[in-house]
Amino acid sequence: MPLPRSTAVLLTLLILSAGSAPVRPQGTSTLEEAEHTVLETPAADRARQWLFALTEEPHVAGTPAEQRVAEYVRDRLVEFGLDTEMVRYDVFLNHPTNVALRIVEPIEMDLSLIETPNVVDKDSADPDLFPGFHGYGASGTARGQVVYANYGRPADFRRLESMGISVEGRIVLVRYGQVFRGLKVKEAEGRGAAGVIIYSDPADDGYMRGDLYPDGPMRPPSAIQRGSVQFLSIQPGDPSTPGYPSREDAVRVDRADMETVPHIPSLPLSYGEAEKLLRRLGGPGAPDGWQGGLPFRYHVGPGGVAAEMAVEMDESLKPIFNVIARIEGTDEPDHLVIMGNHRDAWNHGAVDPNSGTAAFLESARALAAAVEAGWRPRRTILLASWDAEEYGLVGSTEWAEDQAERLGGRTVAYLNVDSAVTGREFDAGGSPSLRDVVVAAARAVPEPLEGGTVGSVWEARERSDWAGETVDLSAPDATFELHLDPLGSGSDYTAFLDHLGIPSVDLGFNGPYGVYHSAFDTFYWMDEFGDPRFVYHAAAARFYGVLGLRLASEAVVPLRFGSYGRALTGPLDDLRRQAIQVARAASPGEVPTFDFTGVQAALSRLTEAGTRLDAALDSVPAGSAGQPGLNRALIDVERAFLSEDGLVNRPWFKHLLYAPGLTTGYAAWPFPEMAEALENEDVTLFQTGASRVVQAIDEAVRRMDQAAGLAR
Amino acid sequence: MPLPRSTAVLLTLLILSAGSAPVRPQGTSTLEEAEHTVLETPAADRARQWLFALTEEPHVAGTPAEQRVAEYVRDRLVEFGLDTEMVRYDVFLNHPTNVALRIVEPIEMDLSLIETPNVVDKDSADPDLFPGFHGYGASGTARGQVVYANYGRPADFRRLESMGISVEGRIVLVRYGQVFRGLKVKEAEGRGAAGVIIYSDPADDGYMRGDLYPDGPMRPPSAIQRGSVQFLSIQPGDPSTPGYPSREDAVRVDRADMETVPHIPSLPLSYGEAEKLLRRLGGPGAPDGWQGGLPFRYHVGPGGVAAEMAVEMDESLKPIFNVIARIEGTDEPDHLVIMGNHRDAWNHGAVDPNSGTAAFLESARALAAAVEAGWRPRRTILLASWDAEEYGLVGSTEWAEDQAERLGGRTVAYLNVDSAVTGREFDAGGSPSLRDVVVAAARAVPEPLEGGTVGSVWEARERSDWAGETVDLSAPDATFELHLDPLGSGSDYTAFLDHLGIPSVDLGFNGPYGVYHSAFDTFYWMDEFGDPRFVYHAAAARFYGVLGLRLASEAVVPLRFGSYGRALTGPLDDLRRQAIQVARAASPGEVPTFDFTGVQAALSRLTEAGTRLDAALDSVPAGSAGQPGLNRALIDVERAFLSEDGLVNRPWFKHLLYAPGLTTGYAAWPFPEMAEALENEDVTLFQTGASRVVQAIDEAVRRMDQAAGLAR
Repeated sequence: MPLPRSTAVLLTLLILSAGSAPVRPQGTSTLEEAEHTVLETPAADRARQWLFALTEEPHVAGTPAEQRVAEYVRDRLVEFGLDTEMVRYDVFLNHPTNVALRIVEPIEMDLSLIETPNVVDKDSADPDLFPGFHGYGASGTARGQVVYANYGRPADFRRLESMGISVEGRIVLVRYGQVFRGLKVKEAEGRGAAGVIIYSDPADDGYMRGDLYPDGPMRPPSAIQRGSVQFLSIQPGDPSTPGYPSREDAVRVDRADMETVPHIPSLPLSYGEAEKLLRRLGGPGAPDGWQGGLPFRYHVGPGGVAAEMAVEMDESLKPIFNVIARIEGTDEPDHLVIMGNHRDAWNHGAVDPNSGTAAFLESARALAAAVEAGWRPRRTILLASWDAEEYGLVGSTEWAEDQAERLGGRTVAYLNVDSAVTGREFDAGGSPSLRDVVVAAARAVPEPLEGGTVGSVWEARERSDWAGETVDLSAPDATFELHLDPLGSGSDYTAFLDHLGIPSVDLGFNGPYGVYHSAFDTFYWMDEFGDPRFVYHAAAARFYGVLGLRLASEAVVPLRFGSYGRALTGPLDDLRRQAIQVARAASPGEVPTFDFTGVQAALSRLTEAGTRLDAALDSVPAGSAGQPGLNRALIDVERAFLSEDGLVNRPWFKHLLYAPGLTTGYAAWPFPEMAEALENEDVTLFQTGASRVVQAIDEAVRRMDQAAGLAR
Repeated sequence: MPLPRSTAVLLTLLILSAGSAPVRPQGTSTLEEAEHTVLETPAADRARQWLFALTEEPHVAGTPAEQRVAEYVRDRLVEFGLDTEMVRYDVFLNHPTNVALRIVEPIEMDLSLIETPNVVDKDSADPDLFPGFHGYGASGTARGQVVYANYGRPADFRRLESMGISVEGRIVLVRYGQVFRGLKVKEAEGRGAAGVIIYSDPADDGYMRGDLYPDGPMRPPSAIQRGSVQFLSIQPGDPSTPGYPSREDAVRVDRADMETVPHIPSLPLSYGEAEKLLRRLGGPGAPDGWQGGLPFRYHVGPGGVAAEMAVEMDESLKPIFNVIARIEGTDEPDHLVIMGNHRDAWNHGAVDPNSGTAAFLESARALAAAVEAGWRPRRTILLASWDAEEYGLVGSTEWAEDQAERLGGRTVAYLNVDSAVTGREFDAGGSPSLRDVVVAAARAVPEPLEGGTVGSVWEARERSDWAGETVDLSAPDATFELHLDPLGSGSDYTAFLDHLGIPSVDLGFNGPYGVYHSAFDTFYWMDEFGDPRFVYHAAAARFYGVLGLRLASEAVVPLRFGSYGRALTGPLDDLRRQAIQVARAASPGEVPTFDFTGVQAALSRLTEAGTRLDAALDSVPAGSAGQPGLNRALIDVERAFLSEDGLVNRPWFKHLLYAPGLTTGYAAWPFPEMAEALENEDVTLFQTGASRVVQAIDEAVRRMDQAAGLAR
């Protein structure tokens, strides 16, 4: 939906004057007017212009190109009139100096680690693109028989073992998908593999899913998925400073002693090249669920083909730059709303992450326009452009560790936008306490092409999906309720939510997207397939801006808790199903008992307390003066779910209700300790985990009731 | 497990003498001894020998070759010492005289309708094989743009319509799988298509599922799935005599007026040839779930490719031959146990059906050996070798219609074996009242290669599958109970169960099998992949023989009813889920209400009555004299589920609890009228259907209580 011309003229004037305009005192503009400005300001053409500039060259973290993009973002924020700083950390990063992969048996053949450029897309031929390599991948060489291990999940390796096939000393070939790539390497390394090749199967994001770039949005045969192989579910951030900030004086861990990165070489591969390995593999046929989309029967090996890989990395401390702009709050300046987006990319990064950066800049411009028009938020808004997310959420994690004292207990919410646009389907994941404000903000944003609002179209789609789901006959009269998807990991909300207990949200407009982390994630791709009119970029900017505005400005912090318990019911039911299945599959006499009654009762208490608190908050008169005490109490609720000593086996993660799956990385594990216990069929850990959950929920209930008392 | 040598010697002697031995009077052998004989007689080598002979040439129904195979089977049964007759019917059949398929746009190219022979398998090069054609396919020509319609289910055509794509006047290309092929043609014809091509996609039984023949058991690129395109779920049997037997004097329906066969041409196609059409298709990309296993993105058309098909059939009344042997019962000669297997094949038929025929002959030989040793069953056993099953269960249906008076209310059970062996996994579908005797018989048969019994291995696998199923939290403490899969259609039990109300069972040992109905369903395939030692053929013969023996010989007919209600609970829950999903997806104010309470209560009464009856039957003293009155009452229970006027829209099907799915053909629809009502969201039909089910169940309960009274 193009902006009315009159607004566009106004915006032009605003922009031209933004760089030098002084900030006016609060009160000359209302929140309603500010929201109008934030909705009207974002422009598709402007988003397109930002994206074009941001994706001019590949900008991997630690390179001069990425510093140039940081400066570009900083300069824009300053131009908009925002108080902006660049925060530098020196962190451990690797860049490839030499990578090679070849078949050595039954013939000798080099396999390509670069993409075949598309003539229509000059960026795909950029000589500055790194070849296929892995962030935090180890230097080294490996040579051995190739064994195919499907997605490289623990269950996949167990399946190989049950077939009597060892990966020890061999080169493990796995396909991308299902779990975070670093965990594939972790599993292979733990079993003694010599090296790992991770390829993109056409069944997962190639021709089985759609037309191939440049005819369509999906992965062509030569496209390589770069990416980090950090052990993300153990701990993100700079692996040379685990759990503490990478300040200049920080003690550094040696490469050899780092615990969250691989120590065997790994490489990514295209399916055009992987086919040459897979076709030659002997051994047993692929088990159920292991067949991919290449046109022959997969075999697991060993036998048939041996390969050799050689990886040399430039590994050193390299500078990264977080760019942070600030809109100072009036009444509660220490209470923060943080809006973050990363900026570094494995390539030109048109989708990942700079569709988000374009939206982020438009949101910033819109908020700045509101400030320029005389509005000021009650609470302080920070707009953060993170660096080195791709390596392991490094920029955001180091900053969050650095600022932990200042952020903890003072931050209303962290709002993340990473890849903002790959298509038209809006979705948001996040903390249950943000559900109401997220839905309300989405309903305030017009849907660009389908009519209605982003919120109404989103809710209709979620309702339709719900209607098609398998029905649980234990709740035949269940009614639809929209919940935010639980957050796992894979983007910058992780440190805020999981380490600091800050309610977080992650948003995007999604569609078919097969060029992830390849040389084809370019402006041309976006312009042809992702968002040819850039209207979803503008819509993302509107939503993101309005959400930040409301969280920072409403007199009572818009955190609501009535749906928290119900948001956890579905995930708890999934664990109950899993427990029943474990029991069913057990030998008689060895049936493990997992007791859910305590957690179920606690969820009921959580729902009741949330409902009481929401009612009390609703009774606060509109337009009443700010209540910093109440707001502080509301901010404190989520932190009741933190465990000081962290999760068992991964203490950096402190949230007892939400964490990335230990064996999934991306996908969330609600009730992470209980989930881990079930995966390992560990009744003792399950009991401990469940009782920690109950304690945390009861502490949250106490805090909610306290807040409700303040509200009345 | 090879037979002990001493037994083999005994068997040889038995065989040599079988042809001329007179039947001895009853009582010189016990049931235990007879069962021992039936278990010890079947021999792997003998089954191999039968299969080799049966598959000497292609033997399509209505051909001289098939008459030769009928005579071969008759001669063997006579040789075994059994009283055997050949029953001829003249039925409407088609054989292809000329079939052609070619691309006419954008280039001209003939597509092959014959297989590329394998050098290792002489049968695959047999010049007597028919080319690709469809049983009951129409003669005619068609020319038009090709449109791809996935599996050709109603939902697939509705999806095309929602995309604005019509199939009218076009050639519909669908893939095999999911539903019976005739229903694909029916749906296309109903929408005005000019012709239909049905191809085998490699995702369904080709390289995505396993290694390709002759390296493995799956479908190679040139293999064509022949088969019938009768509208099987409407009515099977000779379409020229719908609902009545094809006796010499029967009134015949003209081809043009037949209601259960297509009137537009259709052809089957290999994926090697179909690829040439699919690669060229333009139009929108395939929707979710439509992509197959060929290595490119599927599009639905139209545009890109037009084709022309020409089909000429020799259509006429042709002779078919059922071969029926008889072992006369002693005490209840009018009470029957029917053991049936079809014999006709689209090709050499090594799996389908002659693995079953080989087992059938070994069972017959084993039963004859027991008779020879002095045993006689209480009830009469009929051993039936059916013809023309492939066209539409023609031989069995015409005979069942012919003998309806004699069979109805007098037949204990119909035992079917079609494709007996494609691998090692035993499975049986059937009526719940046969569950106990089937499980007991399976436990009496040693598992040939894995140890334990066929029953114990089967039950362990079913239990493991059950443990892995999605758990319904409404029944967290559910315990495992083995049920027979409900029978749909696709083999000769259909007339017996669905038309006459005779409890039926269908059995087989299953494995990876991709050469179905192609030129590669040969002895060589079986010898290499299906059952290289032929031990599962022998196991099938043992199971089949023991099951028939027990049903015919136990003093109290071994029908048991305690699990009948529980066997229907799962299917009813599935319908309840479907109803809830329909309600969830409906517009507010138009939510249809489907009331299950009556049927749920009726199932409880059924379970209670079944439990009462089983207890009464258990109290009958072992070794007590036969009770023809009680047995007659037990036989009558199943017939309470028949509706005289049949199912709405397809009156030939009379069973109110079980029928083939109206839109699936193969797969069963328990509660068929309620299922049809839900598919059409027809509340009125649902209510009528549900009340008919309740009435039928209550009549069955009355009969069960009556039988229980007789037993006490």
